[in-house]
Amino acid sequence: MGKWFDIVLIFVILFSVLLIMLESVKQIDEEYHRTLLTLEWVVTILFTIEYIARIICIQKPFKYIFSFYGIIDFLSTIPLYLSYVLAGSQVLLAVRAFRLLRVFRILKLVRFLGEASQLKSALRASSAKITVFLFAVLILSVMLGTLMYLVEGDEAGFTSIPMSIYWTIVTLTTVGYGDIAPITPQGQFIATVIMLLGYGVIAVPTGMVTVEFGKRSRALKTGEDKVEKFVHVNTQACPSCSKEGHRDDASHCYNCGSLLNE
Amino acid sequence: MGKWFDIVLIFVILFSVLLIMLESVKQIDEEYHRTLLTLEWVVTILFTIEYIARIICIQKPFKYIFSFYGIIDFLSTIPLYLSYVLAGSQVLLAVRAFRLLRVFRILKLVRFLGEASQLKSALRASSAKITVFLFAVLILSVMLGTLMYLVEGDEAGFTSIPMSIYWTIVTLTTVGYGDIAPITPQGQFIATVIMLLGYGVIAVPTGMVTVEFGKRSRALKTGEDKVEKFVHVNTQACPSCSKEGHRDDASHCYNCGSLLNE
Amino acid sequence: MGKWFDIVLIFVILFSVLLIMLESVKQIDEEYHRTLLTLEWVVTILFTIEYIARIICIQKPFKYIFSFYGIIDFLSTIPLYLSYVLAGSQVLLAVRAFRLLRVFRILKLVRFLGEASQLKSALRASSAKITVFLFAVLILSVMLGTLMYLVEGDEAGFTSIPMSIYWTIVTLTTVGYGDIAPITPQGQFIATVIMLLGYGVIAVPTGMVTVEFGKRSRALKTGEDKVEKFVHVNTQACPSCSKEGHRDDASHCYNCGSLLNE
Amino acid sequence: MGKWFDIVLIFVILFSVLLIMLESVKQIDEEYHRTLLTLEWVVTILFTIEYIARIICIQKPFKYIFSFYGIIDFLSTIPLYLSYVLAGSQVLLAVRAFRLLRVFRILKLVRFLGEASQLKSALRASSAKITVFLFAVLILSVMLGTLMYLVEGDEAGFTSIPMSIYWTIVTLTTVGYGDIAPITPQGQFIATVIMLLGYGVIAVPTGMVTVEFGKRSRALKTGEDKVEKFVHVNTQACPSCSKEGHRDDASHCYNCGSLLNE
Repeated sequence: MGKWFDIVLIFVILFSVLLIMLESVKQIDEEYHRTLLTLEWVVTILFTIEYIARIICIQKPFKYIFSFYGIIDFLSTIPLYLSYVLAGSQVLLAVRAFRLLRVFRILKLVRFLGEASQLKSALRASSAKITVFLFAVLILSVMLGTLMYLVEGDEAGFTSIPMSIYWTIVTLTTVGYGDIAPITPQGQFIATVIMLLGYGVIAVPTGMVTVEFGKRSRALKTGEDKVEKFVHVNTQACPSCSKEGHRDDASHCYNCGSLLNE
Repeated sequence: MGKWFDIVLIFVILFSVLLIMLESVKQIDEEYHRTLLTLEWVVTILFTIEYIARIICIQKPFKYIFSFYGIIDFLSTIPLYLSYVLAGSQVLLAVRAFRLLRVFRILKLVRFLGEASQLKSALRASSAKITVFLFAVLILSVMLGTLMYLVEGDEAGFTSIPMSIYWTIVTLTTVGYGDIAPITPQGQFIATVIMLLGYGVIAVPTGMVTVEFGKRSRALKTGEDKVEKFVHVNTQACPSCSKEGHRDDASHCYNCGSLLNE
Repeated sequence: MGKWFDIVLIFVILFSVLLIMLESVKQIDEEYHRTLLTLEWVVTILFTIEYIARIICIQKPFKYIFSFYGIIDFLSTIPLYLSYVLAGSQVLLAVRAFRLLRVFRILKLVRFLGEASQLKSALRASSAKITVFLFAVLILSVMLGTLMYLVEGDEAGFTSIPMSIYWTIVTLTTVGYGDIAPITPQGQFIATVIMLLGYGVIAVPTGMVTVEFGKRSRALKTGEDKVEKFVHVNTQACPSCSKEGHRDDASHCYNCGSLLNE
Repeated sequence: MGKWFDIVLIFVILFSVLLIMLESVKQIDEEYHRTLLTLEWVVTILFTIEYIARIICIQKPFKYIFSFYGIIDFLSTIPLYLSYVLAGSQVLLAVRAFRLLRVFRILKLVRFLGEASQLKSALRASSAKITVFLFAVLILSVMLGTLMYLVEGDEAGFTSIPMSIYWTIVTLTTVGYGDIAPITPQGQFIATVIMLLGYGVIAVPTGMVTVEFGKRSRALKTGEDKVEKFVHVNTQACPSCSKEGHRDDASHCYNCGSLLNE
C-alpha cells in the first residue's frame, strides 16, 4: 500500500509542477484561468492532508517539521493560502514570488532519488577541491574581465567591469551566448587566449569527479565484491525517529529498530 | 558474395538518405523533381525486393517481421507507397511526415556497427546512474528556470516558465544559443552561478562513462588477456532463428547451430 | 591574532575589488563618486600600512620586495598615488589602465589558496603535454581558419585570415558566439567537421588532467596511506627568510627553523 | 649548429605564416602591399634553398620527395612561383587558393612536435572506437535533424534537412551559434532532449581518450619504471635513410646506424 501511495504522490507532484508551468504561459492562463485555479486548489488540499497526516503519524513531530523534507512539505503547501492572505495588500511582486515558491514542490521528488546515490557522495568528497577550484576561476575571471573592459569599449557591450566578468565566465565555461562579443583585434586575441584557457579549466572538475567515481568503483570491487544495488524505498516515516527511506518489505526502522506501522 | 551484397546495401542506403536530403532543399527539388522521384522509386523497389527476399529466406518470418531490424526494413520501404495511397486525401502534413519516415533507412546502417561494441555495453551499465543524473538535472532546471522567470521580465525573452526552463538547460549544457539572454544585473548574476554549476554537472556523465570504460578495459587486460577484436560480420539472417551478425567465414549460426545457406 | 588579521585582510581585499567594480558602472560612479573615492583612499592607506609593516618586520626586505607576493602587494598599493601624479599630464588612457591595475589586488587572495593544492601540481606535471597540445591546436586552427576564409566570403564575417582563425577557435572550443557563422553549404559542411573534431580535441586535456589526478590519488593511497590534509596557514612572513604560509600553531619557520615572532 | 638552424627555421616559418595572415587583412594589404610581397619573396627563396639543400644532402632523394615532410616542404615553396605562372590566365580564385596553400607551411612545425608524443599513439589506439562513435553520432544527427525539419518551419531557419542536420550537430557538440534556434514549443522541447543527449555523447570520446591515457601511463609505471622523457630532436635527415628526428648529440642514425654528417 505504501508503494501505491508513493506512485500517486509522484504523479500529484509532477501534475502540480505542470500546473504552475502552464499558469505562467499567458495565452493558456487567460483561457483556462478558472480550471487551473480549481486544480491548484485540489492539489494544495491534497498536500495539506499529507502534511497534517505526516505530523500526526510521527511521534516526534517537531523533528520532522524542522527537517529538510518537513520544510519542503510546508513550502509546497502554504503559498496558495498565503497568496489569499496577502492579496488584499498591494505587495504584488511578493505575492507572485510566493506563488512561484510552489515550484519547490519538485524537491519533494528528491525523496525518491535513492539515498545511497554514488553521485552525492562523490560530489561531497571532492567539495573541498571544488571550492578551491571555483575560487581560482573567480580570481581568473575578475582579472581577465577587467583586462577586456580596458581593451574593448562600450560599443562591444563591455560597459562595466561586472559586465566584463559576466562575459568572461560565459566564455570560460564555453557557453558563449554571443550577446556580448569582442570586436577589436586585440579583444579577439585575448578572447582566444581565454577560450584556450577554458579548455584546461573545464578539464579540472571533470578530472576530479572522474577520479572520485573511479575510487568508489574500485572500492566496491576489491573490498568484498559488494554490488551497488538500488532497492525501492518509500516515503513512510518511522513513527519514533521520523527517518524516511525504508524498504518496501521492511517491518522495523533501519535506524532505531522500532516497529513500522503497516 | 554476402560481403559484396553488404557493401552494395550500404551504398544504396547512403544514396537513398542523400536523396531525401536533396529533396528537402527547395531549389534542387524544383529543378530536378522528376529525376529525384525516379531515383527514389528505384531505391524503394530495391528495398522492397530485399524485404521480401529476407522474409522468404527465413524459416520463421514472423520473428523477423516484428524484430528491430524487421520493423526498420518495413519502415524503409513503405512510405513511398503510402504517400500515393494517402495523396488523394487531404492530410498533407501527415503525408509529408510519412515521406520523411524514409530517413529511418539510416537505421539500417546500425546492422554494420558491430554487436560487440564497448560503447553500447558501457552506456547500458551506467543507465541507472544516468537516469538518476538526468532526474536531478531536471529538478535543478525547473527550480532555476522558475527563479530566472521571476527575476527577468518578458523583455529578455523569459516569457513563461517553460521558456525559462528551456533557457536554463541551454545554459547548463553550455550550448548557449543566445536567442534568450539575461539583461538585468541580478539575472546575469544568477546566470553566472548556473554556468559554474554547469561545470560540475557536465563532469558527472563524463566521469561515469570514463569509469565504465576503464573497468571494461581493465577486465579485458587482467582476465585472460582477451583482446577486443572487431571481425567483419554480415547481415545474413539465420534461416532457422533469424539472428543476424554472422562472421563472413561462418558456416553455422552462432546462436542455434543450424547450417547457414551459402 | 594572526588569524584575525588574515580574516580582516580577506574582507578588505574583497571590499576593495568590489569598489573598483562599482566605480566602473557609470550610473553608480556618477551618483556616488565622492563616497567611492573616499573608501578607495581608506583601502589604499590600509594596504600602504600593511606593505610598510611587512618590509619592516622582515630581516631581508629586498627578497620580499622582489618576490611574487611583494610585487603584488606593491601593485595593489601604488595605482591611486600614481593616478594623482599622472593626472596633470594628459595620458588619460594610461591613467585609466593604472587605476584598473588595482584589480590585481585579488591576487593577494592567492595566499589563502593553500600551497599543497593538488591542482597546481597536477597542472604542472602535465604542462609539457599541454604545450604540445596547444601547439597542435594552433596549427590545426591556422589551417582550418584559412580554409574557411577561402570558402566563405566577407558577407558571413570571415573578412580576413586572423578573423577566420578566431572563429575556428571559437568553434573548436565549443564556445560558439554566433557573431560569425558560416552561411554557404560548403562552409557549413566544413564547420560540421570542425565541431566533430572539437569533440576529440576537448577530450585530450580532460584525459590528461584526469590521469594526473588519478596518479596522485593512487600514490596517496598505496604509498603510506598519507591523507591529503588542508591545514589553515596564515600570511605571516618568516623574519629571517621571508617565507610565507606557516601553520597557525607554528613557532618556528618550516623552511629555515628560525623563531617566528608571535 | 643543427640546433641553431632549427631555431632559425621555426622563426622563419612563424614569420611567413604571419605574413600570409597580414596580407589577408585588407587595410594592411592596401598600405604595405610592396613590403609584404618583398618579404614573401625573401621567405620563399629561403625555403627554396632549404628544399634543394635537403634533396642534395640525402642519398635517396626520391624517398624524401614523396615523404610527408617532402610534400609539405614542396607545398611551402611552390605557391608564389605558381601564382606568377598562373597570373596571366584568368583563373583568379584558383590563384587565390594556391597562394593560401602557403599556410600549410605551418605543418613544417609538426617536425618539432616530438615523435614519441603520447597524444598521437593514444588517438591512434582508439581510432577504431572513434570511427564507430562518429558513425553513431551521424546516424543520430540525421534522424534528429529530419525530426526538427518536420517540427520547425522555414521561419526558424530550418529550411532544409541538411540545414537541420547542421543545426543538430551545432547543438549536440554544445557549440550553439544561435544563428538557427527553435521557436515553437515542440521544437524547443526536442532541442532540450538533444542537449541532454549531448551530455552523454560528449562524455564518450572523453572517456575513451582518458582510458587510453591511463593505460599508457600505467604501462610506463609498472613495466620497468621507464620515465617518459622529452629530448630535443632536430630536423636533420639521415643521409642514407632520410629519417628525421635525431637527438642533438647523435652521431649515428637511430634507424639505420649510418653516420650522420655533422
